Amino acid sequence: MTPDGVESYLHEHIPLSAGMGLRVIEASEDRIVVEAPLDPNVNHRETAFGGSVAALGILAGWTQVHLRLRREGCDAHTVIQESAVRYHGPIHGAFRATSERVDQAAWDRFTRTLARRGRGRVRLTVRVEADGVLVATFRGSYVALARR
Amino acid sequence: MTPDGVESYLHEHIPLSAGMGLRVIEASEDRIVVEAPLDPNVNHRETAFGGSVAALGILAGWTQVHLRLRREGCDAHTVIQESAVRYHGPIHGAFRATSERVDQAAWDRFTRTLARRGRGRVRLTVRVEADGVLVATFRGSYVALARR
Repeated sequence: MTPDGVESYLHEHIPLSAGMGLRVIEASEDRIVVEAPLDPNVNHRETAFGGSVAALGILAGWTQVHLRLRREGCDAHTVIQESAVRYHGPIHGAFRATSERVDQAAWDRFTRTLARRGRGRVRLTVRVEADGVLVATFRGSYVALARR
Repeated sequence: MTPDGVESYLHEHIPLSAGMGLRVIEASEDRIVVEAPLDPNVNHRETAFGGSVAALGILAGWTQVHLRLRREGCDAHTVIQESAVRYHGPIHGAFRATSERVDQAAWDRFTRTLARRGRGRVRLTVRVEADGVLVATFRGSYVALARR
């Protein structure tokens, strides 16, 4: 799937992502990069709303797991089970979430359990940056459920 | 402040809360209750998007801390430092976040440190329910900074 294709999918199926002005910058095998402008995500301090940052992290991680499962021909759906964000400082402009490819050993454990039990769990970390500076760290735990 | 006053404030200053259709149900000394309908917060599974749940939790907790500081005449601003959500299951309709009053001993430690050092931190838990059932648990850590 191209970045534009992923972006359209997210905007259509998760309308809040459109409201946030989410753009998909990269959707490769190596990483997912999504970005949001400040304006629709601003808070009372004229910095980025923490809820928008959490939402962007969740979407970056979800997209990585979803696309990789699809690419590997795995018929499952993926849901978030736990999300955590640590905010390192105020965000004064557009912010970008990068979800790097989960390492192969962890991924193999995940897909093996999914194949065996119809359900697997994978954890990942997403960096959120603004102007090249790390502004938040997101950790997510996703569960994939095999379709029957 | 009345629930309507708080709702207007949030919609105006955190526009994503308006996009989520956030409503303030209760904004008393005892608790903050905020609610969001499913439609603007739906995901690809036709259940509530995890990012919306995180955002609602953050707003419920923030509102509690902000209003209580104001009520006590404390001139500070409050920001989220850490947020974590555990999702207990899919959410099929409107969902409601309840932030109960932080207990007095923890609140006193928080405001004492804020007064002494110009900066204090408080942790709280928010229950998220749909149709009376607990669907997610939010934990937040907020920092208040005295205005100088």
